[in-house]
Amino acid sequence: MNTNFQQLMNHIEKVMAFQAALTLFEWDAETLAPEESMEYTSKTIGILSNEYFSNLINDDVKKLIHKLSEEKEQADLDFNEKAIVKDIKKSIEELEHIPPEEYRAYSELTAKASGIWSKAKQKKCFADFSPALDKIIDYRKKFAGYRAKKGTKPYDILLNDFEEGFNMEKLDEFFGKIKEAVIPLLKEVAKKNDSIDKTYNYRHYDIEKQKEFCKYVSGYVGFDFNRGVIAESAHPFTTNLHNHDVRITNHFHEDNLESAIFSIIHESGHAIYEMHIEDAITHTPVGTGTSMGMHESQSRFFENVIGRNEAFWKPLYPKLRETFPEQLRDVSLEHFIKGINKAAPGLIRTEADELSYPLHIIIRYEIEKLIFAGKIKVEDLPEIWNEKYREYMGIEPKNDGEGVLQDIHWAGGSFGYFPSYAIGSAIAAQINYHMLSIMPIEKYLTEGNLTPIREYLNNHIHRYGKTKNTNEILKSMMDEEFNGDYYVKYLTEKYKRLYELN
Amino acid sequence: MNTNFQQLMNHIEKVMAFQAALTLFEWDAETLAPEESMEYTSKTIGILSNEYFSNLINDDVKKLIHKLSEEKEQADLDFNEKAIVKDIKKSIEELEHIPPEEYRAYSELTAKASGIWSKAKQKKCFADFSPALDKIIDYRKKFAGYRAKKGTKPYDILLNDFEEGFNMEKLDEFFGKIKEAVIPLLKEVAKKNDSIDKTYNYRHYDIEKQKEFCKYVSGYVGFDFNRGVIAESAHPFTTNLHNHDVRITNHFHEDNLESAIFSIIHESGHAIYEMHIEDAITHTPVGTGTSMGMHESQSRFFENVIGRNEAFWKPLYPKLRETFPEQLRDVSLEHFIKGINKAAPGLIRTEADELSYPLHIIIRYEIEKLIFAGKIKVEDLPEIWNEKYREYMGIEPKNDGEGVLQDIHWAGGSFGYFPSYAIGSAIAAQINYHMLSIMPIEKYLTEGNLTPIREYLNNHIHRYGKTKNTNEILKSMMDEEFNGDYYVKYLTEKYKRLYELN
Repeated sequence: MNTNFQQLMNHIEKVMAFQAALTLFEWDAETLAPEESMEYTSKTIGILSNEYFSNLINDDVKKLIHKLSEEKEQADLDFNEKAIVKDIKKSIEELEHIPPEEYRAYSELTAKASGIWSKAKQKKCFADFSPALDKIIDYRKKFAGYRAKKGTKPYDILLNDFEEGFNMEKLDEFFGKIKEAVIPLLKEVAKKNDSIDKTYNYRHYDIEKQKEFCKYVSGYVGFDFNRGVIAESAHPFTTNLHNHDVRITNHFHEDNLESAIFSIIHESGHAIYEMHIEDAITHTPVGTGTSMGMHESQSRFFENVIGRNEAFWKPLYPKLRETFPEQLRDVSLEHFIKGINKAAPGLIRTEADELSYPLHIIIRYEIEKLIFAGKIKVEDLPEIWNEKYREYMGIEPKNDGEGVLQDIHWAGGSFGYFPSYAIGSAIAAQINYHMLSIMPIEKYLTEGNLTPIREYLNNHIHRYGKTKNTNEILKSMMDEEFNGDYYVKYLTEKYKRLYELN
Repeated sequence: MNTNFQQLMNHIEKVMAFQAALTLFEWDAETLAPEESMEYTSKTIGILSNEYFSNLINDDVKKLIHKLSEEKEQADLDFNEKAIVKDIKKSIEELEHIPPEEYRAYSELTAKASGIWSKAKQKKCFADFSPALDKIIDYRKKFAGYRAKKGTKPYDILLNDFEEGFNMEKLDEFFGKIKEAVIPLLKEVAKKNDSIDKTYNYRHYDIEKQKEFCKYVSGYVGFDFNRGVIAESAHPFTTNLHNHDVRITNHFHEDNLESAIFSIIHESGHAIYEMHIEDAITHTPVGTGTSMGMHESQSRFFENVIGRNEAFWKPLYPKLRETFPEQLRDVSLEHFIKGINKAAPGLIRTEADELSYPLHIIIRYEIEKLIFAGKIKVEDLPEIWNEKYREYMGIEPKNDGEGVLQDIHWAGGSFGYFPSYAIGSAIAAQINYHMLSIMPIEKYLTEGNLTPIREYLNNHIHRYGKTKNTNEILKSMMDEEFNGDYYVKYLTEKYKRLYELN
């Protein structure tokens, strides 16, 4: 091994160990830790975070990265090593120009802000959250400013952080096409919704039985219980310590059958990605999913493209019906498929169906653009939010709780993050068309054999971790980079077929 | 605050953060982590352990400790600060003379040895474990040798590490008295055992109901669910991140009622100790129980002194009977009390009753003495073990699995640890006589009011953490240091009464 690279890894393996410890504390806080714990544990987390940063951002690491970026040294590195150097370089560039005292103040602000947001959301009062949000936005603008090269817009920097190569120009075009197709389609669909009776979904479903079925489905789609566990938390999520320890959570409602089932399929999709990253790169900075968008593409491919497909449920629905014979007595497979795909305008992003979902994202994207262009005041956000819902969805929040305060992202300083959800859905659709052209997906699903589908994703996406970015992965998979048109096509075809529109 | 002390704490707060992270990884491994995780997580644990040691044992910390040990500086420190300096000094003295490469080799050896031990135990074959144990003993002798002052025996050093002020001279006297009293008493008791029918304990007990009852009992004795959680693991244990995050585990058997109930009371005793250490010293090296012996005294006080007392069960037994009406229909309270206190010679330490328990400890203590005096060969251990069980218990293991291989301690290099269990039982008895002289314990128990009992322990033991050692705590509590005679008195009185011996 190259000696400079070896030295770099001596530093980075510490950084990775602190990151793993922080991940475990976060997991523990969400799933198990007692109520009064965090006030004291936060001290430990603060110290570990500090160790994480000071071991990543220091002169030794910078010097090594500088040396390793030279042509001569690069020639000495293999494919994975080059990717590791590139990734660390990017992390340093993101953080190095921020004065440590500003970063600490910002970290403390966002740590407190999620508490302020949570209370404001309960009170449905944006004014309570507005001053904190205003400060967070100031910091994000300032931090982006430190890195901005001449002519680069701050919001483009944030977008690029979440998905390399993406900017407003590309997203404007992508979202423009979606709006054009989805807004009228959703209206047409909504007109025919009276014919789909979904009351069955809100009957009483025993939680222990839901858990059992969800665990079964998780294994069915490919979650490996030798290298993963499932727990419970308020909001489902996925995390991992390395490729042999991937953890997902789920939540359960007695009066909602779908919620837990599609959450577990979604999180299993994320988990399958992390479980199949190669051993050679786990415990390194590139040993994780390549981007938020690509990660969402995998969770949504399993949840929506496969998981809401009739062929998927053909072998599985009898088992669900066996689990809940009373509740599903009068619900045929055909009826169930219509139910799980029913679409309508709505106010809450996390409860949205597949068709209206991108509109929620577009609203947030357009608002974030306005914020970073300095074109709106924070205090005006609720009004702008409600106006956009009226315009795109034809409905309007009754209060800030079901409006501008519904998502936690901004309280954590995550601007530029929301578009990843739509990018993920679009990648899932693009992969779907490609895979349909090379393998009999419906046949596999009907036979209950997901192995060839999963293995294809393992081999062409998962194994690479962050050694390739989204476009590199797509290009070598199907000789085409990201193309949002497939998503428009997918939604249009699917909903015209389901709702028997012309 | 003294500036040298402030500087010391800047180092030590990192040490504490790494310790907390290691504790969380250990908890997670025992309770939840997926099967294949540890092979990879061990790398993270290795790095965090290394950070722990290098931040504790380094020239800066040594210099600060040296300065802070001077009279002038000591005058500047308060009670807690003095205790912290003393404790860090002791930790450094334990570790500093061990060459790092030897320590690493030893750590790797013990990490592997528990796997070797576990397989050897399954195969019931000591010869498979013997070579590893031989090497571990060599290291322990060598490490003790680095610290031995002239005339100090290696085993005395190990005993003192676990319980300050204890050595072979003291323990020989203590254990001598126990043998003299317990061996003949156990024989007498065993003769009358036919009259106590304990078959009820091995009926079928639903595990969900056991869990529910155990959780109730845990809260009943004082476990605070705002600062603690209960999970499951193969062997019950207690751990903590700080005084507001204390975790216990339990195990359940469908065909054994007692096992889970007395395990949860035992672990709750440990937890109550940690939960009541003062805020001022949590997150410092003295913010934990003062010794293994004192910790066991608290778990055993709750489990045995209180938990096997008829007065304790008067208000609680109806609830247990309500939980299991079929199984306990023919078992009166009097019958139940006799059952949970039934004593007989046995082969397995962790399943032993209160009376025979110290004999298990004495056997291990006497063997460890022989080992460190160099008087026996490791390969002869099974024979010596069996001989001692024949002599003290009148029974003999049929194989190494239920004999010399039953405990994990030696595989981890823990020599000098076993006596703490007996010291703990003895302290519990001593505290019991003292408390009986100042408060109506039986009345409180009968009323189901454990608060005054628990508060007394909180105020006189728990709050101090490691700022006082065992003898200092006992002395200020009852004007008497450790005195093993109370334990002999307690066992004799209790079992003569229960078995109606003259």
